Amino acid sequence: MSSPTACVLIIGNEILSGRTQDANLGYIGRRCDALGIRLVEARVIADDETAIIAHINECRARFTHVFTTGGIGPTHDDITSATVARVFGVALCRNADAVAAMERYYPPGKLNEARLRMADIPAGARLIDNPVSGAPGFQLQNVFVLPGVPLIMQAMFEGIVDRLAGGPPILTATVTTDVMEGAMALDLGAIQDQFPDVSIGSYPYFRHGALGVNLVLRGTVADRITAARGAIEMMVARLGGHLLQTVEQGEKR
Amino acid sequence: MSSPTACVLIIGNEILSGRTQDANLGYIGRRCDALGIRLVEARVIADDETAIIAHINECRARFTHVFTTGGIGPTHDDITSATVARVFGVALCRNADAVAAMERYYPPGKLNEARLRMADIPAGARLIDNPVSGAPGFQLQNVFVLPGVPLIMQAMFEGIVDRLAGGPPILTATVTTDVMEGAMALDLGAIQDQFPDVSIGSYPYFRHGALGVNLVLRGTVADRITAARGAIEMMVARLGGHLLQTVEQGEKR
Repeated sequence: MSSPTACVLIIGNEILSGRTQDANLGYIGRRCDALGIRLVEARVIADDETAIIAHINECRARFTHVFTTGGIGPTHDDITSATVARVFGVALCRNADAVAAMERYYPPGKLNEARLRMADIPAGARLIDNPVSGAPGFQLQNVFVLPGVPLIMQAMFEGIVDRLAGGPPILTATVTTDVMEGAMALDLGAIQDQFPDVSIGSYPYFRHGALGVNLVLRGTVADRITAARGAIEMMVARLGGHLLQTVEQGEKR
Repeated sequence: MSSPTACVLIIGNEILSGRTQDANLGYIGRRCDALGIRLVEARVIADDETAIIAHINECRARFTHVFTTGGIGPTHDDITSATVARVFGVALCRNADAVAAMERYYPPGKLNEARLRMADIPAGARLIDNPVSGAPGFQLQNVFVLPGVPLIMQAMFEGIVDRLAGGPPILTATVTTDVMEGAMALDLGAIQDQFPDVSIGSYPYFRHGALGVNLVLRGTVADRITAARGAIEMMVARLGGHLLQTVEQGEKR
């Protein structure tokens, strides 16, 4: 595939310690599918300057888009903005547009010095509007700096969609069956060989006391997904199993 | 800190596409804390041979322990075992002990060729017992290959604890307050400066209609955490806020 690529850098000790469950990767992954961007990898790293610099530099050279989440709040452990400034060798400056956005959000008298730290943005960055809580994110070249709080991150991500180079949307179909993986693995492999342009993933589950398998088909050509789905449905029938559910998905850009 | 380090490699297209929410990083992160292992980073990568080889090689050179999750089932998209064999330049062979473990698990006649693929293990690897569903994982040098299904992964992780070099457990205390981040950021930064051996993280939340902040203290010396906690509690009182909850944690090794 020659689609644009992306990487997510999840910045935060709290994710690595298991204290907080990340909820941003799934959202960005689904949106990348719809935008025709191939999300190639994600990394969870600590709030550590050396680590942030190394990973941003490696990833911005390798991927079309890099999305960072986390570390842009007002406290001492929020070091992402200052570190990104260092990555690009620019100064971190109080940004007048960011201050104005925050003045519109905070009640009079509440925009103190600590909160104003969130208006310190690397020089030359383009702001990313925060419709939820005022303090903006920013973009420098292909690096998009977003917050960690999921609802705010999602609102801000939608604000950058028009800036992202994309490709044909990735379409998905899911076939759910009671045939076990081990019973269909060889036939399924043959179907995968027959449809190299459709990626077929096999995911067993245990739910409500029953075992089953979700077969997830992904590709950019609807007819090919439909044909591969047909082959899978015939295989399930041949093996004496049942189709529990079939879902086709394609999200808006 | 000179504690042993670790990295988690989460292998699976379904995590990157947002179809499946990873649940293994949080578990491994909490266990590493208890074991005194510093979990430095995690990477989510695709079921892609080139990517798996590159990341395993980079990470096994950089970290004391590398844990991989996912891609060791019976279907065509399960390529982790064969790829790890390639990483170490050894053959992938049908492992007699793995076959025996699977024969104990499967009813007579159900251990077919596709399932037996899960007994193909890199030569020289040490098996990791699977008390849940038979098919084992394995260890080669400092790389531990585990499954993606959380309940099975957890059971198998507990089986390797004795093989892992650790350090003093990382202790945690959490102070929950209604003082907003922006109102205490400067004072909190001063406390962090005073306690460089205690890592203080600040995590705002919105729950049951109320805003609050969790302040998470982490370190290896209980007295220092207690002292930093005392300083934070005095700060909250000074700022006219309330302590909503205080929790101290330290898990068994």
